[in-house]
Amino acid sequence: MPEEAAHAPRTPLAARKETPPAPLPEPFVAELRARLGERFTQNPAVCAQHGHDESHFPDAPPQAVAFVTSAAEVQALVRAAAQHRVPLIPFAAGSSLEGHVLAPLGGVAVDFTQMNRILAIEPENMLATVEPGVTRTQLNAALKETGLFFPIDPGADATIGGMTATRASGTNAVRYGTMRENVLAIDAVLANGEPIHTGTKARKSSAGYDLTRLLVGSEGTLALFTAITVRLHPLPEAVAAAVCPFPTIGAAVHTVIAAIQMGVPLARVEFLDERAVAAINRYSHTEYPETPTLFFEFHGSESAVAEQIELVKTLAEEANGGPFLWANRPEERTRLWAARHKAYFACLALRPGCRGTTTDVCVPIARLAEAVEAARRLIDASGFIAPILGHVGDGNFHTLILVNPDDPDEIARAEALNEAIVTAALALEGTCTGEHGIGLGKKAFLRQEAGETAVAAMRAVKQALDPLGILNPGKIFE
Amino acid sequence: MPEEAAHAPRTPLAARKETPPAPLPEPFVAELRARLGERFTQNPAVCAQHGHDESHFPDAPPQAVAFVTSAAEVQALVRAAAQHRVPLIPFAAGSSLEGHVLAPLGGVAVDFTQMNRILAIEPENMLATVEPGVTRTQLNAALKETGLFFPIDPGADATIGGMTATRASGTNAVRYGTMRENVLAIDAVLANGEPIHTGTKARKSSAGYDLTRLLVGSEGTLALFTAITVRLHPLPEAVAAAVCPFPTIGAAVHTVIAAIQMGVPLARVEFLDERAVAAINRYSHTEYPETPTLFFEFHGSESAVAEQIELVKTLAEEANGGPFLWANRPEERTRLWAARHKAYFACLALRPGCRGTTTDVCVPIARLAEAVEAARRLIDASGFIAPILGHVGDGNFHTLILVNPDDPDEIARAEALNEAIVTAALALEGTCTGEHGIGLGKKAFLRQEAGETAVAAMRAVKQALDPLGILNPGKIFE
Repeated sequence: MPEEAAHAPRTPLAARKETPPAPLPEPFVAELRARLGERFTQNPAVCAQHGHDESHFPDAPPQAVAFVTSAAEVQALVRAAAQHRVPLIPFAAGSSLEGHVLAPLGGVAVDFTQMNRILAIEPENMLATVEPGVTRTQLNAALKETGLFFPIDPGADATIGGMTATRASGTNAVRYGTMRENVLAIDAVLANGEPIHTGTKARKSSAGYDLTRLLVGSEGTLALFTAITVRLHPLPEAVAAAVCPFPTIGAAVHTVIAAIQMGVPLARVEFLDERAVAAINRYSHTEYPETPTLFFEFHGSESAVAEQIELVKTLAEEANGGPFLWANRPEERTRLWAARHKAYFACLALRPGCRGTTTDVCVPIARLAEAVEAARRLIDASGFIAPILGHVGDGNFHTLILVNPDDPDEIARAEALNEAIVTAALALEGTCTGEHGIGLGKKAFLRQEAGETAVAAMRAVKQALDPLGILNPGKIFE
Repeated sequence: MPEEAAHAPRTPLAARKETPPAPLPEPFVAELRARLGERFTQNPAVCAQHGHDESHFPDAPPQAVAFVTSAAEVQALVRAAAQHRVPLIPFAAGSSLEGHVLAPLGGVAVDFTQMNRILAIEPENMLATVEPGVTRTQLNAALKETGLFFPIDPGADATIGGMTATRASGTNAVRYGTMRENVLAIDAVLANGEPIHTGTKARKSSAGYDLTRLLVGSEGTLALFTAITVRLHPLPEAVAAAVCPFPTIGAAVHTVIAAIQMGVPLARVEFLDERAVAAINRYSHTEYPETPTLFFEFHGSESAVAEQIELVKTLAEEANGGPFLWANRPEERTRLWAARHKAYFACLALRPGCRGTTTDVCVPIARLAEAVEAARRLIDASGFIAPILGHVGDGNFHTLILVNPDDPDEIARAEALNEAIVTAALALEGTCTGEHGIGLGKKAFLRQEAGETAVAAMRAVKQALDPLGILNPGKIFE
């Protein structure tokens, strides 16, 4: 979700770790120095920069950082790490909300930000192949002349590698799918140092196990990506965006449910409760009515967009929503969505010095009103400031619980609130995470959601592909 | 692809097997008899019925058939099979084109046709949960009053279990996706007898490894399914279908490529070469011009459909295609698509007594004309009758090579033709199978396509989840 990085040093490693990891083996360090030169560093400041993300977890810096520039370097690094049993933690934008890039067991952060070349754009095949460090805005800038775009847009300017690793989505997923649907092929290095290519450039395939989908969402625990082929989509002929206020949370959410059930191909539909709208107004200097609100975007031909608007307006009016505030010019739409994408930092600004604990549940579409209303009751009972916002066309919403990171009691109460919201969503047959991943923070929720047998099967796959446990250890599973 | 079963006994097991499998262990047979009664049988006629599918492979009957009726029975069967190292081969419609249901290593066919209950239809969540033996037409009949439908339509009236196992698609995939996109959750029994539930009813999730997508397309080699939750889609407000002739293969295919690149949301676009059209005309008593042809279907609102038609007509005319023959009334559309779905048997009827070897390549969309034209040149050089037809909106097409199953030389030449078509598609960065799976026949192609490292990773997953190798052995891998 975060739009920009705003890092400040937080809890030092020593404060949270019982036993610091053993120093990196000398031959390993020597090998990597010889191979990468100054791009392998144990500089404490650089390590500290790689020891936190946008989550509320205490800092956990790696023992070294390797700035890789090629698949061959990634291979050499993995082989050395396997030989010396050194954990490798992939790192790029550092915008994870679940502690994915932290190094609680020590090891080497593999920094992919220099592997940021766009390897191929094939407009005629509607796909692009990029290195993992390419960001989503970088890719879209490169697509400018093609009439195509890459739709997946987590709030942060995340990298395609990180987005693949967490099975990310964003505001467009209701129409264009998530990384699950939009990654076609992956080049990666397995834990044994072998390069692997999964998938093809064809849109579909029944050729053996779906290794591409196995790697999408694997959070750096099964392989390190070196190139990713993604689907592109034609820019719509017409686009319309609008903001629509509603009297209640239920009225807004029921409008979305009805539109989805009627098959309206909404491109984006974002819910914000009154606190989130107020935060945006303060942060982005907008003047939206501070009430439960939907941000809509419609894509299609001129007439298709007009039809969608007509239908959605009728549904909104039936729920006593409106009036629609239209953003007709491109710059108005940009302002509207920039405000939405900055919502994470807008909400953080409601409580200076705080950190965010973000819930990320996703429920079947008809249970969405229940889930959001349950979350709101739990928040109100907790006393926390916790705006609600999310990609409600998918059944996915976030609550951003604002916590004082230096108050263990408050953190514990925030975790209890998070757990209560997740438990409510699971009772509605949903998932504990729609798009942020498990990371460090949701391991217990994964067991609760998937059950011990499913988690055991995941572990068996992990054990089969990374028997030494060197790839991002401590994430997804204990 | 096949629309109906038309089985006749073919090559007996003994003719092709060097060493017949050892008899089933007595205690295993006794346990299953006690548990399933007459639903566990070693009757040779019943075994023979379970020894072939719609592929050209010689019959390979199992040593017994277990007609299961519940997840508990599947569990008991798997536990007994694990204890006694007995292969289990899932079976339902028997419409595989790649030998998936054959028992070349002996073992027990697990017949799911009696597990055909629709467990839940949730129109408000736009999903249904079914037992694996439910067929696609059975599910759609049950959805009649809901305004929703299940779009995936391989030619055969396949079961949802079989379609999940092969990652099937069909004529609607260009708009609605394949089983990969439409399976949300799976209940299954692992090779150790443990029940597992993967996925949730939420549309998206980032909760751990994507076990659902790992099981979709696993061809019965990782788990036996006991329930499957699929997405449903709203019936479109308006539907229009048409048949459009073209002067050349290239003209037809380039029309499709242009439409896809422009983002026209085609619901169906099927290509048939002149031989396939001629076969359909004879078999289904239609009178389509016998030239390369596209069958189109458009879904949307009245005006959206009108717009799509206008655009596609313009593209077709630019390629010297047309005139469009419209099927406006529902019964005309049904006749049109019934003719298309019966194409497999229509083509088989071109050469009485023959069997079909079906190629199933899928290429990136812009390479489609090259791939189809290359296939056509290879066919013409081979001397075989081999109509070309397929789901070209996905880049997927089939050639149906008509072979005399009793002529080993002809079979060898058909296999060489198949291999040449696959090699051409792989050179265009495509896949050897868009929707039929690997089964017995494409194991070498999988290695060629994915590479040894990827196949080794698949094997490692197989070994992790089925260490005894009891689930559908001999499929996907040697």
